[in-house]
Amino acid sequence: MHLNLEKRPNNPRIIVGFPGFGLVGTIATKFLIENLDVEHIGSIESDHLLPLAAIHKSKLIGPLDIFYNKKFNLVILQTLSELNGTEWKLGEILHDLADDLKAKEVIILEGVPTTKKKESYDIYYYSTNKNFEKLGVKPVQEAVMMGVTATLLLKCKSIPISALLSESQSNIPDSEAAARVIKTLDQKMVQTEARPPKYTTEKSDLDYLG
Amino acid sequence: MHLNLEKRPNNPRIIVGFPGFGLVGTIATKFLIENLDVEHIGSIESDHLLPLAAIHKSKLIGPLDIFYNKKFNLVILQTLSELNGTEWKLGEILHDLADDLKAKEVIILEGVPTTKKKESYDIYYYSTNKNFEKLGVKPVQEAVMMGVTATLLLKCKSIPISALLSESQSNIPDSEAAARVIKTLDQKMVQTEARPPKYTTEKSDLDYLG
Amino acid sequence: MHLNLEKRPNNPRIIVGFPGFGLVGTIATKFLIENLDVEHIGSIESDHLLPLAAIHKSKLIGPLDIFYNKKFNLVILQTLSELNGTEWKLGEILHDLADDLKAKEVIILEGVPTTKKKESYDIYYYSTNKNFEKLGVKPVQEAVMMGVTATLLLKCKSIPISALLSESQSNIPDSEAAARVIKTLDQKMVQTEARPPKYTTEKSDLDYLG
Amino acid sequence: MHLNLEKRPNNPRIIVGFPGFGLVGTIATKFLIENLDVEHIGSIESDHLLPLAAIHKSKLIGPLDIFYNKKFNLVILQTLSELNGTEWKLGEILHDLADDLKAKEVIILEGVPTTKKKESYDIYYYSTNKNFEKLGVKPVQEAVMMGVTATLLLKCKSIPISALLSESQSNIPDSEAAARVIKTLDQKMVQTEARPPKYTTEKSDLDYLG
Amino acid sequence: MHLNLEKRPNNPRIIVGFPGFGLVGTIATKFLIENLDVEHIGSIESDHLLPLAAIHKSKLIGPLDIFYNKKFNLVILQTLSELNGTEWKLGEILHDLADDLKAKEVIILEGVPTTKKKESYDIYYYSTNKNFEKLGVKPVQEAVMMGVTATLLLKCKSIPISALLSESQSNIPDSEAAARVIKTLDQKMVQTEARPPKYTTEKSDLDYLG
Repeated sequence: MHLNLEKRPNNPRIIVGFPGFGLVGTIATKFLIENLDVEHIGSIESDHLLPLAAIHKSKLIGPLDIFYNKKFNLVILQTLSELNGTEWKLGEILHDLADDLKAKEVIILEGVPTTKKKESYDIYYYSTNKNFEKLGVKPVQEAVMMGVTATLLLKCKSIPISALLSESQSNIPDSEAAARVIKTLDQKMVQTEARPPKYTTEKSDLDYLG
Repeated sequence: MHLNLEKRPNNPRIIVGFPGFGLVGTIATKFLIENLDVEHIGSIESDHLLPLAAIHKSKLIGPLDIFYNKKFNLVILQTLSELNGTEWKLGEILHDLADDLKAKEVIILEGVPTTKKKESYDIYYYSTNKNFEKLGVKPVQEAVMMGVTATLLLKCKSIPISALLSESQSNIPDSEAAARVIKTLDQKMVQTEARPPKYTTEKSDLDYLG
Repeated sequence: MHLNLEKRPNNPRIIVGFPGFGLVGTIATKFLIENLDVEHIGSIESDHLLPLAAIHKSKLIGPLDIFYNKKFNLVILQTLSELNGTEWKLGEILHDLADDLKAKEVIILEGVPTTKKKESYDIYYYSTNKNFEKLGVKPVQEAVMMGVTATLLLKCKSIPISALLSESQSNIPDSEAAARVIKTLDQKMVQTEARPPKYTTEKSDLDYLG
Repeated sequence: MHLNLEKRPNNPRIIVGFPGFGLVGTIATKFLIENLDVEHIGSIESDHLLPLAAIHKSKLIGPLDIFYNKKFNLVILQTLSELNGTEWKLGEILHDLADDLKAKEVIILEGVPTTKKKESYDIYYYSTNKNFEKLGVKPVQEAVMMGVTATLLLKCKSIPISALLSESQSNIPDSEAAARVIKTLDQKMVQTEARPPKYTTEKSDLDYLG
Repeated sequence: MHLNLEKRPNNPRIIVGFPGFGLVGTIATKFLIENLDVEHIGSIESDHLLPLAAIHKSKLIGPLDIFYNKKFNLVILQTLSELNGTEWKLGEILHDLADDLKAKEVIILEGVPTTKKKESYDIYYYSTNKNFEKLGVKPVQEAVMMGVTATLLLKCKSIPISALLSESQSNIPDSEAAARVIKTLDQKMVQTEARPPKYTTEKSDLDYLG
């Protein structure tokens, strides 16, 4: 597993999402890539990934592609497939990437299971970044993280890292949970003066992503 | 996995087909090898391939044999078996081969699933080669590529690469879908002044390949 | 698999527990970490561990984290997940850790199956440390040890090592068996003048750990 | 996987048989070893072979033993077990052996499936040795070879190689198909002036081998 | 997989038994270790062995421990668990051990299946040691050996090696078959002037081993 990077942004904010609970991470990062003005700047390659490519709007997408949005200085990682067996190595590579680009911070978008009824879903966060306390969402007390979300949280010690955790009731693709995490990210962006104006978080905008 | 090459054509067009949907790639490349005047110029060997050889018309064929047609300067790869687990490496080796021979372009023949009714099947293309726009077939908008077709598209960055995608309704060997892709390839060959005159694309000619 | 250690206590007592019978080792070490004043001093990393992290009381915990209690000079290893396939290597790493820190001794907290009725459960020990004879618990005559408990006992030859074995009737998490092993450890601590005063071994205190 | 050779015959004919269809190769080579005057001259060893030894007539036999018959200058390989996963490597080692001993030729004894009725079974051959045309058996037109028979045919390029293919109706041990291949080999031996006079090909002689 | 040896006896007789048919080898070597005056002199370690330790009479036993009886100059290997996947390597290590200690001979205690009725069970031997002919037991004519018994017989070429094969009717632990092999070993020991006087071969003595 290794990283190919054609462009090296300086001090970016890195946003990642993996195919975890409710596919929240995958749907949310896909939304960002489609609604922000991004360019393809690299990929992560590994013989252990599924041999898989998507053609989307006539463009070729690999299993782990990296995009860049210049306006907000965002690096976004899109994951197209399951990552079974590569989680520790991928966590390490992403930490090295963050370190190498002197990233301001790393933000993971993720879903967490809940048994709550509709209309009362929450967003939680885990963060080593003090600024998250001002966000208006609650810190998570107890949770179990799986996959690259877990390994990246554990590996990423030299860079501030946060996970935005959106409650979801089932493990089928949940675009509403993804919408909530985007909305919160958006609010945070405001506070950090990096609000991407081009996307909204209406349910209707996200539905097609599910 | 490594490449054995006994002859090194210069600037060839490389045509490959893998055992994907409807076996379109396998049937179409087999048709080319049987209907063009070809010589065996090499093979790709790997302990990870199935231990398998075919005797066809009293000639021995390995799991990944490479043929050359001098008249049209075509290098054709024939794949006899499944390639599970070798997809990334094989994509890399084929890209290196193309690079090494200074190939004009790489063309993948492949099938894609459809739910369309008979008599309305389409051919699509994905290409980094501008000339494909003149072909009269539509660029593919949305698709998921699997196997070596996916890895070769992702790895092949320094050489123009195209995939001709023939719609097929089922995953059983589909010689009609293979005939359509050969016909389109043939038309393209005309435009590129490399029409192989010896083969036709009548259904009857291809039926025995299924 | 390798060890990350941020702090190097001198001559500590090392206490470990693995997810064995009745989860006795996991529950008992978790109890120690929650009821003693500990700091996180390191972790053991391996691509072979499950990609898993827990957030507990808003703190991030890895699959194999190492804690230190200064007052009693205790190094405690907490294991969050199954260790299948890493048992021999982990036994070796823990022995090297003990050797490296010039540990006074290593104590394994473990469960053993029994068919005894309630109110008559025993604690047994296996030890290469003569002091254990004064503890008032019986040496084990016949038993089969599995997992890291087995490999650590076999690898740890240069440092005194002991296993406190708490009888448990079933393989579901058994916090009472864990309470008994903590109580015995506590008594031993008294004899070795290292009694941790902050925790008790009432069933009620341990129940939530199950 | 490596070759141990205690004796190095010069310019021998190498005869091999693997546990393929109808166990024809295994039964036929066993017959040769039992009916010719042979000595054990080596073996092929590999951690990937089944841990298995036979005691036959109070003699120890390994999974891949090599015998030598001086009179006819024959090297015979006997395979006691399945070779799954070692086919490519074994094909390479046998080719190296043939190359190293400057073998006159390599002959594979093998079974091929047929749906023909009894009393009309055929023998076919595939050969890079022109002499086989005089044998009176037909060249094979279409067939799929599996296992070491396939890999050895593909690897063995510098030495003449032939496969004698005996039709068999089922995949249970077929000593009659093995008898037919021995009979043909015998006739060939006559033409090449190396007829082993000590064995016959009566069904009764081969029956016990099944 | 490697050997740890704390003591190096000179010219010993090496006796081994593996968990084969009827567990004859395991039961018989366990009997020897319990009834002779032995000391622990080493072990064979491997990440491929089951992570397993026994405590027997308050002593710790690893999966592959080596014992020494000084009086009769016997090195005895005890195997506690299945050895799947390590058979070839273990055969090699045991041969190297025998070679290194200049062992007089290696004796394998093993079970072989039979369909005979009770009261007529035989002991057979396979041996490269001429002295076995005087023992009064029959040489084995036809048999298939599995596991380390097979690999050790095949690897051990520079040291005389024998297998004492005790007929057993079923693959459940068969202490009577083990008793017969011990009795024969005992008789042989007499002839070789190394009779261990402390054990008898009454069924009652062995029963608890089953």
